[in-house]
Amino acid sequence: MKERPPILHSSTVAIVGLGLMGGSLALALKERRAVERIVGISRAHTTLDAALARGAIDHAATELDAARAANIIILATPARTILRQIPRLGASASDGALILDLGSTKKQIVRALDQLPARLLAVGGHPMCGKETSGFAAADAALYQDKTFVLSPTARSSDRAMATATELAQTLGARVVVLDAERHDQIVAAVSHLPYLVAANLVNTVAEWADEDNRVWELAASGFRDTTRLAASDVEMMLDILLTNGENIADSLRQYARHFAALAELVARGDEEPLRAILERALTQRRELFAARIKPRTR
Amino acid sequence: MKERPPILHSSTVAIVGLGLMGGSLALALKERRAVERIVGISRAHTTLDAALARGAIDHAATELDAARAANIIILATPARTILRQIPRLGASASDGALILDLGSTKKQIVRALDQLPARLLAVGGHPMCGKETSGFAAADAALYQDKTFVLSPTARSSDRAMATATELAQTLGARVVVLDAERHDQIVAAVSHLPYLVAANLVNTVAEWADEDNRVWELAASGFRDTTRLAASDVEMMLDILLTNGENIADSLRQYARHFAALAELVARGDEEPLRAILERALTQRRELFAARIKPRTR
Repeated sequence: MKERPPILHSSTVAIVGLGLMGGSLALALKERRAVERIVGISRAHTTLDAALARGAIDHAATELDAARAANIIILATPARTILRQIPRLGASASDGALILDLGSTKKQIVRALDQLPARLLAVGGHPMCGKETSGFAAADAALYQDKTFVLSPTARSSDRAMATATELAQTLGARVVVLDAERHDQIVAAVSHLPYLVAANLVNTVAEWADEDNRVWELAASGFRDTTRLAASDVEMMLDILLTNGENIADSLRQYARHFAALAELVARGDEEPLRAILERALTQRRELFAARIKPRTR
Repeated sequence: MKERPPILHSSTVAIVGLGLMGGSLALALKERRAVERIVGISRAHTTLDAALARGAIDHAATELDAARAANIIILATPARTILRQIPRLGASASDGALILDLGSTKKQIVRALDQLPARLLAVGGHPMCGKETSGFAAADAALYQDKTFVLSPTARSSDRAMATATELAQTLGARVVVLDAERHDQIVAAVSHLPYLVAANLVNTVAEWADEDNRVWELAASGFRDTTRLAASDVEMMLDILLTNGENIADSLRQYARHFAALAELVARGDEEPLRAILERALTQRRELFAARIKPRTR
């Protein structure tokens, strides 16, 4: 069976969860006529109706068992929901089906996928295309275009299962990065979950000032807007992330707080040279990373 | 003399410093034919040549004394340079001239403007249109459009001096907010200087992880990019800000660190309900503030 993994273009794909990620994935597969048939699974009738109306799915179902009809099952629900759905699919999914999840954390999910019966295939996935919008109404066939799509191997990932998952991600326009689950979780704790908490904390800190001075928000400009954009992320999704990657995130928070305390001390002392060194390091790193088109100062 | 403040359209305007702010201001005044004549003052010959070539200024000078020819003098240099230039203008500026500075902090600058001889007019200014670009090459006549332009009164601000400064700011397309210097500095410490340090600290924290794991930057996506945009700000300008508004910024940093420690504790404990309350408060505040087009979750 592991020698006959699903062929994408002749597959029935079940997409469980039709929010921003699942909905966009359905639209992208349809736009590219990449698969045979799409079954959309959501508990929300309004979402299913909207997905049918936009032609994102061929068939609508409210129960996870409907995934039985599929040879590729994509879990696009929040991380803790995925953890509950995996064992249920272990019982109900068809022989040889490939399960791919889109959860934002991977260690706990891959551990659950490892426990699936040997008659199933499974690959952990994390497309890095978060936005501060959510829900099917925000779905967009171009969401995955040029984004990084992490694939984490499981005990149920044959080479050909990895190849099918890779083909699927690339069909969406994404760039595949293979990374084991633990290392993925450590890295996203730093580059994704930490920035979210930094942004949310900034909003709450300034909101406290605004309670005391009613003109605070008047002066909040584009810098504040950009730095806090992530604070508008979906809270339930973020809670799932915080509660399934807590240790790594707590590590990142500690490192951040340590650097922050040193910086605050230099600001309080007005210690110019070490401050310059720290700020220039940040500028240089940021510039190299994004190759921003930054003009040299002329005065 | 205070009854004859400069009339904008018949004024000779000296702009001291032709970086992003000064250069953009010159271009905007020229585009709108708002003043009689512009004298550009910069120590950099290449900047003066570029400004003359783009028609941003009518006359170029390398020395501050050239401001003697102007009845409106705009200081568009970094905050600590402005502090050195104000007393020199006290000696050299023509009777009745209006001095307006564009410094990012106001208390120390307004205190210096207060000391100018009574024969001069002066208004403190802070156009909130920072970008992570700098220098005349990045100048843009539309930079001030729809941005907030704070005016801080000084002991040398007659009603008509305020009116002229207001007319100038509005001519650039900016929205004027009158705010005393100390309150301005407290507010921008929270909404502008704190976000900069938060962003720079995030880059440096993640860079430390990246030194240990060479795949860290591969997973840095749009969320990290936006949250750290301010870290690419001009370091010399930011140092001037940090060293002329240190106390207020240190206060903001303390508040931020206090909220951050509480948040980190909840993450480490995986304490879901208080975490949800904090994150929802941030989401709600951010949403109200920017009226972001956020779609409701459907699943």
